[in-house]
Amino acid sequence: MQKTSFSEFSCSAARALEVMGEWWTPLIIRDIVLGVRRFEQIRVNLGISRKVLSGRLIHLLEHGVLKKVAYKDGRTREEYHLTQKGWAFVTSIVAITQWGDEWECPEGGPPIIPTHKNCGGRVEAKLICDVCGPLSDGKEVTARRGPGAQVKPGTLLIAEHGYKPDRIE
Amino acid sequence: MQKTSFSEFSCSAARALEVMGEWWTPLIIRDIVLGVRRFEQIRVNLGISRKVLSGRLIHLLEHGVLKKVAYKDGRTREEYHLTQKGWAFVTSIVAITQWGDEWECPEGGPPIIPTHKNCGGRVEAKLICDVCGPLSDGKEVTARRGPGAQVKPGTLLIAEHGYKPDRIE
Repeated sequence: MQKTSFSEFSCSAARALEVMGEWWTPLIIRDIVLGVRRFEQIRVNLGISRKVLSGRLIHLLEHGVLKKVAYKDGRTREEYHLTQKGWAFVTSIVAITQWGDEWECPEGGPPIIPTHKNCGGRVEAKLICDVCGPLSDGKEVTARRGPGAQVKPGTLLIAEHGYKPDRIE
Repeated sequence: MQKTSFSEFSCSAARALEVMGEWWTPLIIRDIVLGVRRFEQIRVNLGISRKVLSGRLIHLLEHGVLKKVAYKDGRTREEYHLTQKGWAFVTSIVAITQWGDEWECPEGGPPIIPTHKNCGGRVEAKLICDVCGPLSDGKEVTARRGPGAQVKPGTLLIAEHGYKPDRIE
């Protein structure tokens, strides 16, 4: 099955998903964030096939999200570490996890709690307005045109209508 | 192609992705957040097939992320609105979009800027520690066992090893 590519979309969310949005990928990144960095560890932890895992890792290496780092285990082997681009995705991983904790919680409660390495405090992803501070609800969010607004797939109607949410007819 | 289901994973990220992680779904949610709420509008805006869009909307209705709301257009028709569960996903959408803005930015800059409805300020998703406040880097995030930790796919190795990141061998 050939999936539609989002790479030509005039939309940063679509372009992010082109790199990070494939089935399994956010879970692979999550594993690596938590120190599960070797091919066999990730495979066992997620119960993913070698073929799919290999494909996803190659894609993430090609897009500069991961890098290979050598380690010694008798012979020299390689594990997968996040680049700066990969670490920057942690905000999205935490946001998705906390949505799952709240709305699709596994039996018994959250399996893991995002935690600050430095102090052990609990970490959450929050929406912050640069004028008002934290927002209490996603309903408070809309969008305005940015410098790269184009009438292309992804923002076609929105661009045509000048980003007037609730007024697009 | 039958995809692996994440619904039995002991992992809130996996369970969130089971509902929200299919190809196209975050973009459909993004459109609805911005006021593109009718089947034909979403189809045109994203350039998605009727069949795929219809499947995704049914899935989101079944999982309580969207609800149908009637409107008059000569005859009575329906549009798709977010439920509270749907609005709660906006933090993830904003986080993914800002990652795209930073690392996969379309030509000319960000196409849209997440904005606070009340004051017009710019909205960002940020990692906040409940002890220290905002984190400067995703590298500061790790995780500890939560109440629902189980040795099951998704958290198999992590649970076995007591969530000691960087010490899983």
